[in-house]
Amino acid sequence: MAVAEENPPAYATSLADIERAAEVLKGHVVRTPLIAAPKLSALAGADIYIKYENLQFTNSFKDRGAYLKLDSLTGEERERGVIAISAGNHAQAVAYHASRLCIPAVIVMPEGTPFVKVGNTEALGAEVVLAGETLTESRETADEIARERNLTFVHPYDDPLVITGQGTVALEMLADRSHLDTIVIPIGGGGLIAGCAIAAKALKPDIDIVGVEVEFFPSMYHAVRGEEPKCGGQTLAEGIAVKAAGEYTLPIVRDLVSDIVLVDEAAIERAICTLLNVQKTMAEGAGAAVLAALTKEPERFEGRKVGLILTGGNIDPRMLASIVMRGLEYEEKIVSLRLRITDKPGVLGSIASMLGKAGANILEVSHRRTFLDVPAKGATLDIVIETKDAAHAAQVMDKMRKAGFEVKRRSGSDGDFGAY
Amino acid sequence: MAVAEENPPAYATSLADIERAAEVLKGHVVRTPLIAAPKLSALAGADIYIKYENLQFTNSFKDRGAYLKLDSLTGEERERGVIAISAGNHAQAVAYHASRLCIPAVIVMPEGTPFVKVGNTEALGAEVVLAGETLTESRETADEIARERNLTFVHPYDDPLVITGQGTVALEMLADRSHLDTIVIPIGGGGLIAGCAIAAKALKPDIDIVGVEVEFFPSMYHAVRGEEPKCGGQTLAEGIAVKAAGEYTLPIVRDLVSDIVLVDEAAIERAICTLLNVQKTMAEGAGAAVLAALTKEPERFEGRKVGLILTGGNIDPRMLASIVMRGLEYEEKIVSLRLRITDKPGVLGSIASMLGKAGANILEVSHRRTFLDVPAKGATLDIVIETKDAAHAAQVMDKMRKAGFEVKRRSGSDGDFGAY
Repeated sequence: MAVAEENPPAYATSLADIERAAEVLKGHVVRTPLIAAPKLSALAGADIYIKYENLQFTNSFKDRGAYLKLDSLTGEERERGVIAISAGNHAQAVAYHASRLCIPAVIVMPEGTPFVKVGNTEALGAEVVLAGETLTESRETADEIARERNLTFVHPYDDPLVITGQGTVALEMLADRSHLDTIVIPIGGGGLIAGCAIAAKALKPDIDIVGVEVEFFPSMYHAVRGEEPKCGGQTLAEGIAVKAAGEYTLPIVRDLVSDIVLVDEAAIERAICTLLNVQKTMAEGAGAAVLAALTKEPERFEGRKVGLILTGGNIDPRMLASIVMRGLEYEEKIVSLRLRITDKPGVLGSIASMLGKAGANILEVSHRRTFLDVPAKGATLDIVIETKDAAHAAQVMDKMRKAGFEVKRRSGSDGDFGAY
Repeated sequence: MAVAEENPPAYATSLADIERAAEVLKGHVVRTPLIAAPKLSALAGADIYIKYENLQFTNSFKDRGAYLKLDSLTGEERERGVIAISAGNHAQAVAYHASRLCIPAVIVMPEGTPFVKVGNTEALGAEVVLAGETLTESRETADEIARERNLTFVHPYDDPLVITGQGTVALEMLADRSHLDTIVIPIGGGGLIAGCAIAAKALKPDIDIVGVEVEFFPSMYHAVRGEEPKCGGQTLAEGIAVKAAGEYTLPIVRDLVSDIVLVDEAAIERAICTLLNVQKTMAEGAGAAVLAALTKEPERFEGRKVGLILTGGNIDPRMLASIVMRGLEYEEKIVSLRLRITDKPGVLGSIASMLGKAGANILEVSHRRTFLDVPAKGATLDIVIETKDAAHAAQVMDKMRKAGFEVKRRSGSDGDFGAY
């Protein structure tokens, strides 16, 4: 059922387009599952269902739009090839499906792009060109190459076919669980949310479509308000760090999306950990942002039947390891202590024994006495211990202080020692 | 269709029992999805489907058997309560479902059990008693407490009801994909594989049931051969580190399981990484063992339609972080180098510049000149760098050697410096 209007606005796509796209995509992209998440539901007080787009072949929803666009090319266009700019999921999606369809693909990436991303994209059969410091600069090079070689440009979001392809996500979600009353969707340039809003609102006009952006890149949030956004900063959610809303996507989001929640980096980091530890699935920052939005505004989602689109799972393994360890520190299950001790035999031994008796497990020890911020006859001892939780950590520090040791947290509210 | 035999052996369970159990479990345990894994299929040359038991509420299949057993208790037995021994998934499953059914539960764990596991089990509402060095010693304490308080013992595998509950996994798999021709299942005490073999063989007599054990704990492998197993060692797959096959499970496995594959620790570690990086899901060692078996004997599974039971996702976060980092070292994307340098100003700078030009990213530097294994006028420089892959790492080392530096890998085939 389409939204009944006399003169419906001329959006870039329609439910009928998206339904046809779903037929075209059959057998070419993964029909991902929508799975109930009882443990997250209990934590959030809402009925949560997760759409696992991280199970696509290139591990993000970008496969959908990329395939639909490539499939639409004429024989001649296919022979000449395509070009795209992306350091991330769009690059892999275009590379993978172009290679499957025997279409030559050039991907232009900014010069500082991590090896992993370059390597993954090359492994999928694309020619990678490193150019420019930012995606905007890469775009200039891409335009040049496109002109020279007569290549078709595949836009990551501002293309009606790409928007249509991404819209199939919502189609599948409502086919699987028609009782969803809310869908939460991350926004970069807006391709995914635009396509999904068109499909979902046409099928179920009273459904609530909520967008999520990171605080550092609130481009759509401001664009729908007619404001100039201030974008920039290091974000874990690279996938949605987009500075400008799309021309095709903006009007759809303005009309059909009820709200855009802005989430901060700490919330995204916590959400990645929660999805990993509780839901046992790997989400990249952009994919975890939807859970961060739920945590930020619990009352907004309370008691509702909420579909979260886990858009992708491509996270740098080093970053992942670091986030997992930081998660333990956040929960005070790993605590870094700094002690001032007198530099005489036996002191380290007595501290280690005391920690053992207090039930703390020693993970790291670093013992220094050659720096100026330590008295000549003293030493600094840095110890990393594993504890049960925050209360246990406090207990352990208390015991050490009662035994006469000067002990501080190396990070957190307890601060560092000042200089002498 | 049951296997046609005149006098079927008196196994602990039957297809009919398991089908009835599935009805009892409805609404109490998660009906987990069986999902096609196209990327793993491409890597393995087999058609792979994963049964996500890590999506159960306590993140392992143990919920099934535990619930069925608890559900079977009389009102009086429920009032008195239950007791179980486990440091892992069985503990959490019993604690969770006992608490839901308002049955008091005591869980006995060995004394050295990690905080996380004790905390998780307590958080689920059970009373945790730490006793004994090993599970066998914990058993003695558990028996005492059970006698004193008149509690019902919930065995982790050697109980007909537990075996029956676990068998529902295979029932669901064949309901979802009846064309599976192989199911690969980890073996601890054998509860899961026994139940699944009964169900699957009854429904599809020509299906191939393959078991997996770790090399350190080949208890069932030897038991089916009538041999005495040698068990012991530190394994990542704690969930299947069981020293003795069950009395109820052994005859079923002997009759219905075609083969037991033994996998080593390195293979399990690689499989955990692959499931995380490629399939974006978190598997504990026991859950990853099934993929390790596929990697070990690819020709055995080639071209087949293989269901893998990802039994659980409970892995210690510190262990996970370490496995992820070791995975990068294994792929030579992170390389630790040790250099001998002359201790004069500017040397570190020229090395760092050279690495930068070679495209290697420096992650860690440690510079020492106070140890006896270094000449008085020299220094040891340990550098950890990030590289594209093994070929790139070799290239980087080559460049450094050509520039006159003495450089070695700190780990791997290249070995360490000897003493002077």
